[in-house]
Amino acid sequence: MALKAGVVGAAGYAGVELVRRLLEHPDFELAAITSDSDAGVALSKIYPAFAGITDIEFSNHDTDVLRECDAVFLAVPHTAAMSRVPDLLEAGVSCFDLSADYRLKDQATYEAWYAPHTSPELLERAAFGLPEITRAELDRAAADRAAGTPALVACAGCYPTATSLASYPAVSAGIVEGVVQVQAISGVTGAGRKCNERTHFCGADENLEAYGAGTHRHTPEIEQILGLPGRIVFIPHLAPLGRGLLSTVTMQLTEQAAADFSLAAMLERYTAFYEASPFVQVLPEGVLPRTKSVQGSNCAHVGLAWAKETRTLIGIGAIDNLCKGAAAQAVQCANIVFGLDEQAGLAHMANPV
Amino acid sequence: MALKAGVVGAAGYAGVELVRRLLEHPDFELAAITSDSDAGVALSKIYPAFAGITDIEFSNHDTDVLRECDAVFLAVPHTAAMSRVPDLLEAGVSCFDLSADYRLKDQATYEAWYAPHTSPELLERAAFGLPEITRAELDRAAADRAAGTPALVACAGCYPTATSLASYPAVSAGIVEGVVQVQAISGVTGAGRKCNERTHFCGADENLEAYGAGTHRHTPEIEQILGLPGRIVFIPHLAPLGRGLLSTVTMQLTEQAAADFSLAAMLERYTAFYEASPFVQVLPEGVLPRTKSVQGSNCAHVGLAWAKETRTLIGIGAIDNLCKGAAAQAVQCANIVFGLDEQAGLAHMANPV
Amino acid sequence: MALKAGVVGAAGYAGVELVRRLLEHPDFELAAITSDSDAGVALSKIYPAFAGITDIEFSNHDTDVLRECDAVFLAVPHTAAMSRVPDLLEAGVSCFDLSADYRLKDQATYEAWYAPHTSPELLERAAFGLPEITRAELDRAAADRAAGTPALVACAGCYPTATSLASYPAVSAGIVEGVVQVQAISGVTGAGRKCNERTHFCGADENLEAYGAGTHRHTPEIEQILGLPGRIVFIPHLAPLGRGLLSTVTMQLTEQAAADFSLAAMLERYTAFYEASPFVQVLPEGVLPRTKSVQGSNCAHVGLAWAKETRTLIGIGAIDNLCKGAAAQAVQCANIVFGLDEQAGLAHMANPV
Amino acid sequence: MALKAGVVGAAGYAGVELVRRLLEHPDFELAAITSDSDAGVALSKIYPAFAGITDIEFSNHDTDVLRECDAVFLAVPHTAAMSRVPDLLEAGVSCFDLSADYRLKDQATYEAWYAPHTSPELLERAAFGLPEITRAELDRAAADRAAGTPALVACAGCYPTATSLASYPAVSAGIVEGVVQVQAISGVTGAGRKCNERTHFCGADENLEAYGAGTHRHTPEIEQILGLPGRIVFIPHLAPLGRGLLSTVTMQLTEQAAADFSLAAMLERYTAFYEASPFVQVLPEGVLPRTKSVQGSNCAHVGLAWAKETRTLIGIGAIDNLCKGAAAQAVQCANIVFGLDEQAGLAHMANPV
Repeated sequence: MALKAGVVGAAGYAGVELVRRLLEHPDFELAAITSDSDAGVALSKIYPAFAGITDIEFSNHDTDVLRECDAVFLAVPHTAAMSRVPDLLEAGVSCFDLSADYRLKDQATYEAWYAPHTSPELLERAAFGLPEITRAELDRAAADRAAGTPALVACAGCYPTATSLASYPAVSAGIVEGVVQVQAISGVTGAGRKCNERTHFCGADENLEAYGAGTHRHTPEIEQILGLPGRIVFIPHLAPLGRGLLSTVTMQLTEQAAADFSLAAMLERYTAFYEASPFVQVLPEGVLPRTKSVQGSNCAHVGLAWAKETRTLIGIGAIDNLCKGAAAQAVQCANIVFGLDEQAGLAHMANPV
Repeated sequence: MALKAGVVGAAGYAGVELVRRLLEHPDFELAAITSDSDAGVALSKIYPAFAGITDIEFSNHDTDVLRECDAVFLAVPHTAAMSRVPDLLEAGVSCFDLSADYRLKDQATYEAWYAPHTSPELLERAAFGLPEITRAELDRAAADRAAGTPALVACAGCYPTATSLASYPAVSAGIVEGVVQVQAISGVTGAGRKCNERTHFCGADENLEAYGAGTHRHTPEIEQILGLPGRIVFIPHLAPLGRGLLSTVTMQLTEQAAADFSLAAMLERYTAFYEASPFVQVLPEGVLPRTKSVQGSNCAHVGLAWAKETRTLIGIGAIDNLCKGAAAQAVQCANIVFGLDEQAGLAHMANPV
Repeated sequence: MALKAGVVGAAGYAGVELVRRLLEHPDFELAAITSDSDAGVALSKIYPAFAGITDIEFSNHDTDVLRECDAVFLAVPHTAAMSRVPDLLEAGVSCFDLSADYRLKDQATYEAWYAPHTSPELLERAAFGLPEITRAELDRAAADRAAGTPALVACAGCYPTATSLASYPAVSAGIVEGVVQVQAISGVTGAGRKCNERTHFCGADENLEAYGAGTHRHTPEIEQILGLPGRIVFIPHLAPLGRGLLSTVTMQLTEQAAADFSLAAMLERYTAFYEASPFVQVLPEGVLPRTKSVQGSNCAHVGLAWAKETRTLIGIGAIDNLCKGAAAQAVQCANIVFGLDEQAGLAHMANPV
Repeated sequence: MALKAGVVGAAGYAGVELVRRLLEHPDFELAAITSDSDAGVALSKIYPAFAGITDIEFSNHDTDVLRECDAVFLAVPHTAAMSRVPDLLEAGVSCFDLSADYRLKDQATYEAWYAPHTSPELLERAAFGLPEITRAELDRAAADRAAGTPALVACAGCYPTATSLASYPAVSAGIVEGVVQVQAISGVTGAGRKCNERTHFCGADENLEAYGAGTHRHTPEIEQILGLPGRIVFIPHLAPLGRGLLSTVTMQLTEQAAADFSLAAMLERYTAFYEASPFVQVLPEGVLPRTKSVQGSNCAHVGLAWAKETRTLIGIGAIDNLCKGAAAQAVQCANIVFGLDEQAGLAHMANPV
């Protein structure tokens, strides 16, 4: 019997990608998709790619159907998730939140970057959703769920996902000193469905720009995942493509680590680290990731380079910001939490060209 | 036991899309992929999207493995297919040719537009591969194959596919008079993998142009499918996107047909015509096709508009030129010929955004 | 002493292109730029390309400065222009309107396609602004202005400009029969500054679609310019680029004209027709226009092709929809009306790559 | 009497941009444009934007006309320039080299990164061409030329230009410690006219990738300009746009400098530093550069941000890689060397949208 799934905020970009993934998932049955602004409207009317595939209509956010689901995925802005999760958990629904609301373990940090937290008691219970790095937390949530306590998974942000995959194996080796610079570039779907000067085609086309330089909210999240409090400077950029996110991390090695350094050995460390993951590919020496290679798929490509003169290890991660950076990774987390095949509904590869 | 499939010309764009489709196909096992220029090279080296998915390497075009396949898909330029198909058929291999070599029933027409034909005796046997319109030919080929005669399917060209889907139900009603104008726009993958001024990013980006205006080789093919010899003027255009093809057909109705005309009724006719097809969607009145809605999928979206003043019925068809316009449609044809589920390996929908 | 110019609706795309042209114009001095929504804001704040170039701020639409100008360019939506032009003319200001308000000579036609006309008495006086075709009207307006009556110029629309340049010399030869099909493609700046699903980068990127098929307001305008009432079917399309517009016109020649037809001769006729124009280039036989070749400039490239079988002459015109299709052409009209060098402020060529 | 100019390598992207600049230059007359592969071909045949503007044809690289020019601009690959410059200087021609051949003051450094130097004796004489930073060298070359010794100007590379403009005022204050990270993104024109997998539209479109990470040849050039030998790690990226280059520089300040740091004060320092430059705009606090704002113009926009926690000053520079990053800057250098108005031929601003 299929597991029932619901998507809150299904009219947004991450939300509709979730809908697509769940429709193609062999074990989940899509029970409800909600949107405040588009309630009552057919999904295929807003997203014609669904024409002939499903007649499903958006429901209102407060639909009771959500409470009958096994899993609800929330793709609404921060604070909006916080207002719904406690009730859903209460009703026995496992929640997979794509917002930042439950990602940061430290309430004060969350509140410094976002807003007052209305259910901080759930922070400890929340499992951080970046399987290749926080698998233990997801396994714990899976065990809890099997024992009767619905899971709460705080799915990682897009920039933190690509950044961490590109740097965690090196950072966790304890060989990186000082500040770590993260410069990332994202396609415009990362900016969301709302229209403004920046997301208007005529603003984004043929343009490159940085935004939130050094002040972006993903900074504390990256610091938390990598265990580098106060040591991350993060600068996101916008480029003229739809989907795709490339994160380039510069890590200065300690003098000792640099003296011994072998790029081949580090690539082996990365490869071993991601051995068990069906989704992360560590590219051969000399080959750097291309976002197009993973577009539309839950895969991540990771590559390394070594700038010997400055003792800088460069880690680069490429993902599709809506897939591995949001919706597909959320489904991957749900697969783990529900004890399903980790690749269920996630097998389709990127267009080769 | 899985059917063995081979792809000749697998390093080109249509070829590599075939590879991806066959890798994901539940009933076909990819036995060989060939390329003259890249023989011996790993597929994932040329197309990194395959990294971690397959280790397969390109073989030389003349590999014996092809002769052991149940089906061979040829994605090589015209005349190149002609030189290989007879031998493959002889060896019992069903051939699915993506070139124009066996599409035109009339040898003289083929030779007027392309080159001397080296196996014209096969033209009659060849089944034209546009399932929604030439299903009977494909069913015949399926029956022949089941009876021991390998099939030869000439898969429709990309522009003829979108054009015909957009206009056949109207044209076949016998209500169209005079010349039919076809103006189509394609993304750059349609121009192929070869690099030149036109396909260089800096030539194609931010540019619109027509090419082969009124002289394009797809003209006789469209005339053949629609049964309108000498009545098609076809003008293709290039636009700055990768995949996507939109064909806009203007059909002037006879005075009588125009007097009675009802757009709603014509939409019903189209809908009924494509009822049995899992891949063609006729959009509601007032909604016109968007290529993005079908990108990466084997679907086609068709829409109609009526310009009463000039008695012009406008039919518009949107496809992904590498999918429904080439590789995915070829697989759809193979599914029919081999008696498989018509949607096998073709279920994945377009990215919703 | 410099002529004073004002721009109403200067925050829109055509408006800001006008501002740039007037800032670079040797004979005009920009006295006021107006916007209702951005009054009081610095131009460079909304359009950073002006940083360090000008400090000018938007004024309110009702600023008295407009009444002191020699010329006011109106880049506001239809009906908005109608409400302002009479007063400005009264105050002695020559008006160059980029909306449709005064383009259609026939009031009934305007009202059928747009809205009730509030100053139809001005329709006869209005000079249609497409210099290469309606030069006589502009020369008359110039003479009137010199004699003391301010000019009213209704600048041609973008699609009608490219379409007419591509077809007028042939149509005016009286050799075209039946319905003329116009299929055009435009970049997204043509859709204007307002944000919606269609203009959002993630909606327009990697997408092709038709809109207003057979029902677009530019239909009567094209019919008027070409003198083909009820004989135009016009289908615009949107493609993923910022600026650029390509119009492809299919004209069926009479049997007699077709029998005698020589493409070389027709190209000569076009070349002679545009001889005096510094801005229109008729390309050599076999070369078709590319929008990139004219992007950012007031130039138009025109090319022809001949589909003999169907007696179809194909005319193709490429322009920059904001330049020759709007603002730059308006300045060209002003140059004529004020007796200035026709190329004043319009000499800069397109980026070669 | 007009100065005679020649362009060697005029068929490449930087070369043809030079041709356009010189055609529009009031003081230079274009005497010869050379190309080995396109000798004898009309410029407008390869770059249709020139249709109707000039009939000039490419000459062979060895044309004597070059020796009669006052100035020759070389837009050929490194080592190709080296082979031509000595003769031209000998003939009294001032040379403006867009390659790296004479940029690096230290011969050993050049040879470590490029190739053996065939005229190292010219390295000392060569003036580095980045006016806002190395003005003194250009003034010296101007004086020498006026006194009879032709000038040799080594025009700065594109990445080094944007990078240095974004960081020099801070670095020259002596407050930056350790390694400086430079992550830059460029449009595809930066990769040049040659066609390959990376520059094919279907490779570059909808894709982000890094290349030459930590090993790019512009590293020593950036180190030289900033006076930071061995302290630069430079990672360039490719994004799907034609023209545009954004360089993001992270500079860690010393503890003392950080304690006193005021972003407003640093912006004042930058503004004062570029006061005399008509081309460099320092944006207000909180506003970051957009490449589109300077596309097609010789302008550069510079912005700053401060990440206090990590003591990181972020400098961002946006240019058009073919203009301020190559051809237009070369013309700016020539204007200085020939004692012309520094803005001659360089006044046209970017498209506002």
